[in-house]
Amino acid sequence: MQYHVDGALVDADAASVSVADRGFRYGDAAFETLRAYGGTVFRWDDHAARLRNTLDALGFERYPDAADIRARVRETLAANDLADAYVRVSVTRGAQPGALTPGPADPTVIVVTKPLPRGGTAGDDVWDAPASARVVETRRVPDAAVPAAAKTHNYLNGILARNELDGEDEALLCDVDGRLAEGATSNAFWVRDDTLHTPTLDGDVLPGVTRRAVLDLAAREGIDVETGTYDPVALRRADEAFLTNTTWEIRPLVDVDGTALPVGPLTERLAARFDAAVEAAHY
Amino acid sequence: MQYHVDGALVDADAASVSVADRGFRYGDAAFETLRAYGGTVFRWDDHAARLRNTLDALGFERYPDAADIRARVRETLAANDLADAYVRVSVTRGAQPGALTPGPADPTVIVVTKPLPRGGTAGDDVWDAPASARVVETRRVPDAAVPAAAKTHNYLNGILARNELDGEDEALLCDVDGRLAEGATSNAFWVRDDTLHTPTLDGDVLPGVTRRAVLDLAAREGIDVETGTYDPVALRRADEAFLTNTTWEIRPLVDVDGTALPVGPLTERLAARFDAAVEAAHY
Repeated sequence: MQYHVDGALVDADAASVSVADRGFRYGDAAFETLRAYGGTVFRWDDHAARLRNTLDALGFERYPDAADIRARVRETLAANDLADAYVRVSVTRGAQPGALTPGPADPTVIVVTKPLPRGGTAGDDVWDAPASARVVETRRVPDAAVPAAAKTHNYLNGILARNELDGEDEALLCDVDGRLAEGATSNAFWVRDDTLHTPTLDGDVLPGVTRRAVLDLAAREGIDVETGTYDPVALRRADEAFLTNTTWEIRPLVDVDGTALPVGPLTERLAARFDAAVEAAHY
Repeated sequence: MQYHVDGALVDADAASVSVADRGFRYGDAAFETLRAYGGTVFRWDDHAARLRNTLDALGFERYPDAADIRARVRETLAANDLADAYVRVSVTRGAQPGALTPGPADPTVIVVTKPLPRGGTAGDDVWDAPASARVVETRRVPDAAVPAAAKTHNYLNGILARNELDGEDEALLCDVDGRLAEGATSNAFWVRDDTLHTPTLDGDVLPGVTRRAVLDLAAREGIDVETGTYDPVALRRADEAFLTNTTWEIRPLVDVDGTALPVGPLTERLAARFDAAVEAAHY
């Protein structure tokens, strides 16, 4: 496997960053997890926009444009002869002398990839089974401390949440006021009385690209949608529920804090529409 | 300069970590900033205890013991012929496959160093002038999201705080409830009516090693001390104030949000005692 590091393709085993890189010292870096289907990236424009938003939130004064980063992703996929793949793009503020206050950014761009079986109507899900989840004690870092819309290498909050699990697949975090925010690596959806619910982006919620795709599909399907702020008990009382992220796509959620939920009809309908959209756009 | 990386001394220019290292991917790492005076580390036991506390908080199941890490610090100082130095020790959870949920830790230990002039009564301060500071809008990450006592590579909160500055030396952060917590890389102290004040560790405050040293000195000197929760306006209304960290030691704070404060007698007394303690212990 070859990775793209600071402008060049290198063997994965040799792919590294300087210990002086702020991405290592402070987690001072933005990232995106992408999924390539049939050689092209799912919702690239959404990912590129979110990456730019993260870099702006972190105050990077300059960084490679979307076309430049897209070219590095393409080169990485081509070098590894990958069409269906997981791709992680990181942009760090670069190596600087020891001070915490950033100097002008000299970004380091890293593209990591690995094979991931295709989805779509002809493919299989990347997860083995529907998900179980637990609402954990660790609270989501509030927007006032680190912008909620920024996807960064400061991921300890999610790791600490996952550390609380006892075999479940996902940790669900509430905000500091106890309202349901999101999973450590996913957004949460549930259905109650035929209405699809998900926490609003006005709260401490990462604007997931798959979350957006699901809301777009729901609108197209004429499904009633409500976004708002919710007590986490809403999930346990749901008729059905699912989690979304770029890797999982739409993954049914069948166990929340030990309460069983069915794989419901709206989840299956949205998953089928999602697969069809992937198929139509990429194969 | 040579750094210690994963058990070996390497040229600083070649010192790097794998892009698969969780310290890079997620900031999943603990660190300590140390200061060596005359070849020995100031308050090593305190730093070692805090490092261990951080590693436990992050759920590392195993990690090198304090003697092992101390040996690496000594080797690094010796290799660079340094007696008076800044030292940064990082312990990451190591390189693992792509999942966020940690597997068993295979820590990567990194020791970085650079010369730093000696303090003590015979030395100079490492800072050029007393500090200016601003109370910023960015709020301190709450303990419920990431343990406040953990010193980790997730340092974006402090970077975002520093990004708000307009030339000041330090950003002062309040907690999510608006109470003064700490500086981005320092603890805050102030004097009012002959009583030394600093925010309590019951709040979202890192237990600074120099903070502890100052409180010990104050007790020995018979100075009245009050720790509690405070509105940030307390700093502007103080008779005198200072900031502490391992690098700065005791640095007078003479400008808070544009309000001038004098370099006061208690600050000077504590700084003199601190210098004497360094001198006695290390030279």
